[in-house]
Amino acid sequence: MSLSTRQAALLAKQASRRLATLSLEQRNAAIHAAADSVDQSRKQLLAANAQDLAQADGMLASGEISQATYERLRLTDKKIDEMTRSMRTVADLPDPLGRTLQKTELDTGLVLEKVTCPLGLLAVIFEARPDAVTQISALALKSGNSVILKPGAEVRETSSALMNSLESLPDVPAGAIGLLHDRKAVRELLELNDLVDLVIPRGSKQLIGFVQANTKIPVLGHAEGICHVYVDAAADVAMALNIVDDAKTDYPAACNAAETVLVHEAIAEQFLPKLAERLHAKSVTLRGCEKTRTILGGDKVETIAEDNWHHEYSDLVLAARVVGSLDEAIHHIHEHGSSHTETIVTENAAAAEEFLARVDAAGVFHNASTRFADGFRYGFGAEVGISTSKLHARGPVGLEGLTTYKYVLRGSGQVVRDYHGPNARQFTHKRLSND
Amino acid sequence: MSLSTRQAALLAKQASRRLATLSLEQRNAAIHAAADSVDQSRKQLLAANAQDLAQADGMLASGEISQATYERLRLTDKKIDEMTRSMRTVADLPDPLGRTLQKTELDTGLVLEKVTCPLGLLAVIFEARPDAVTQISALALKSGNSVILKPGAEVRETSSALMNSLESLPDVPAGAIGLLHDRKAVRELLELNDLVDLVIPRGSKQLIGFVQANTKIPVLGHAEGICHVYVDAAADVAMALNIVDDAKTDYPAACNAAETVLVHEAIAEQFLPKLAERLHAKSVTLRGCEKTRTILGGDKVETIAEDNWHHEYSDLVLAARVVGSLDEAIHHIHEHGSSHTETIVTENAAAAEEFLARVDAAGVFHNASTRFADGFRYGFGAEVGISTSKLHARGPVGLEGLTTYKYVLRGSGQVVRDYHGPNARQFTHKRLSND
Repeated sequence: MSLSTRQAALLAKQASRRLATLSLEQRNAAIHAAADSVDQSRKQLLAANAQDLAQADGMLASGEISQATYERLRLTDKKIDEMTRSMRTVADLPDPLGRTLQKTELDTGLVLEKVTCPLGLLAVIFEARPDAVTQISALALKSGNSVILKPGAEVRETSSALMNSLESLPDVPAGAIGLLHDRKAVRELLELNDLVDLVIPRGSKQLIGFVQANTKIPVLGHAEGICHVYVDAAADVAMALNIVDDAKTDYPAACNAAETVLVHEAIAEQFLPKLAERLHAKSVTLRGCEKTRTILGGDKVETIAEDNWHHEYSDLVLAARVVGSLDEAIHHIHEHGSSHTETIVTENAAAAEEFLARVDAAGVFHNASTRFADGFRYGFGAEVGISTSKLHARGPVGLEGLTTYKYVLRGSGQVVRDYHGPNARQFTHKRLSND
Repeated sequence: MSLSTRQAALLAKQASRRLATLSLEQRNAAIHAAADSVDQSRKQLLAANAQDLAQADGMLASGEISQATYERLRLTDKKIDEMTRSMRTVADLPDPLGRTLQKTELDTGLVLEKVTCPLGLLAVIFEARPDAVTQISALALKSGNSVILKPGAEVRETSSALMNSLESLPDVPAGAIGLLHDRKAVRELLELNDLVDLVIPRGSKQLIGFVQANTKIPVLGHAEGICHVYVDAAADVAMALNIVDDAKTDYPAACNAAETVLVHEAIAEQFLPKLAERLHAKSVTLRGCEKTRTILGGDKVETIAEDNWHHEYSDLVLAARVVGSLDEAIHHIHEHGSSHTETIVTENAAAAEEFLARVDAAGVFHNASTRFADGFRYGFGAEVGISTSKLHARGPVGLEGLTTYKYVLRGSGQVVRDYHGPNARQFTHKRLSND
């Protein structure tokens, strides 16, 4: 507990070397032991959480934290049940390590394999979410990575109590799961690009933006989700209404909720009044371009400033724009979107395929709600985060986002000298598998 | 030519959107047209190169550049032949785009595909290598990426002449291949992390280190290759001699050449004198630990400072250390290596597997020379670079290193609301393919 940030990271990195060699059975047993220990520490956890809540009461009264944040940091027996259940779910997932991605015979007795392995050391910086401790610890153990956690001050006591319950797990080397409290630790962690392989920020847009702006370590996450629904000239109107409604109102605070609907001018007069009626019934505020306002009337839709299309409302507000063509819709998306998830509603297969091919985003959908962009809905079992970066992992990221690969070459004495020059041996380059 | 760095990058990024939609045939035709054009511009290329060489003559005389650099920047008819041949080879490679990496039915009529697509905009910063212009342009065209090239001042005229020959290629949008000359352009390019998706530095360790230290854009490359050969207690001595010899002397300047040999103490007295004899005959200087010096005698081996094990000689110099165990060898590699390529020589299968599993490096080899770590030898057809980063691409990187993927979801009106709540539809999550 009195370790410096760098010392904790060094210890965790050393531990990661041993963690990487544990068998699947050992890693799963450690996860189950961790869940058991959390389960058996309920009293201590709830007591520690009561201390955090006492602090939070004051912050809630003074408006420093929101009611939603207060609810998030509050632990209950039911939440502890959910936490342990979700840990055990991770144990049930297939092994992300040791998968052969590619196998090639380079020559007789010289075989190359590309095999998945852990990244090494993860750093997780989060705010008022005690369940981040258990979820990330389980994901890290499963993927053979060490992890350093830096919780927000709001959950300081709860996080410490959770860590106590994770302290001695069978076969897990000391220091493999580390906790830092010091406020300075965030900046210090972000500077350890020689030790930390991946940072995962969990929390507000502000937190994620701060992390992205202040580190050279690769960041898994996304600061913004500005998703669009494009209602094409050839859209099925009932389907389009249903999809826009879902994309906006199912969970407006989610990153995969839609912020803007783009409507082809050929269908705008038919579609927009129906959309306004449906969304107004659900208390959604519309903000529209001039054409939208002309069609709906100024009382049904607020104006939107031209520089305000790149905006994540995370609320029951939807921007609306009439566009002249598919081309204009795609241009708007590239200009104002955040490359998260974009959907087209149309019965025109050619328009759909053009949209799917041309739009540059982590998710491109046809006739489906943007809300499907999610690791569980995609069938990944666990979601580590959603990435809008193009490198390493893009879109919803499952356990494989916590792995890398190495090339394993098994030979029988081969040297490169024999493969060049006048009597050079030839490589066979026989693909033995390509998973 | 009078564009600012940002303007050039914006234009290139726009061009990349259209480039991404070209068919394989169009991209290959553009590469062949580029090769034809280079072929037909010989006179202009050699004339421009003569201007660069005139400058270089003075720099060579004053010692500003080495003879090796001078040779690299010099163009000949034979080099132009090689350049165009290597471009056409890229056209012959399989398409890296539009590959389905995974296909899952989420529900009836709702199918998710993970499909490869271009990264967008590459930036390539290189020194005295005119062939970088043609090679990278061909790789970028093949992978549907735009590229901005920033050549070293030594090849300014040659690069401009090469760019002229690549200016109007069939179906390739204007600005897709951009060239920057201004000395300030390097720093400016490195700041464009909102536009540039990947930077590829080609040149000296100093250049690569500078790029890595000064950008938030992901960098494809490696500053150092400090590779080890570990000669285990159970090594076949003749094989070990052959492998160490190859790893050190086949091409000492290569990043995959060995810098250090680690010898198990049980075999050291037998192995080291033979190694010294063999390597001395090839003018290799040995630098050793105290035990090595005791075995070989002080006249056969120089001393090495304890803080000098992390050193890339890139020359006919080899460090040697006697270790007490496999464990100590692995520890030395993690402490002093650069995670590039590490090899064990042993007849003991268990020791080999332990080494392959535990060593954290892009390449881990058994009974084979470190020199095999190379995109062509691995069978990738083209090598974009060798990466020691763990994210995105690790080890030798082929064309796929210039791609990312997106999730394409094809539905028939599905909304998420139907998949939660009391009468929730269930996802099928049926794996349709896993390439």
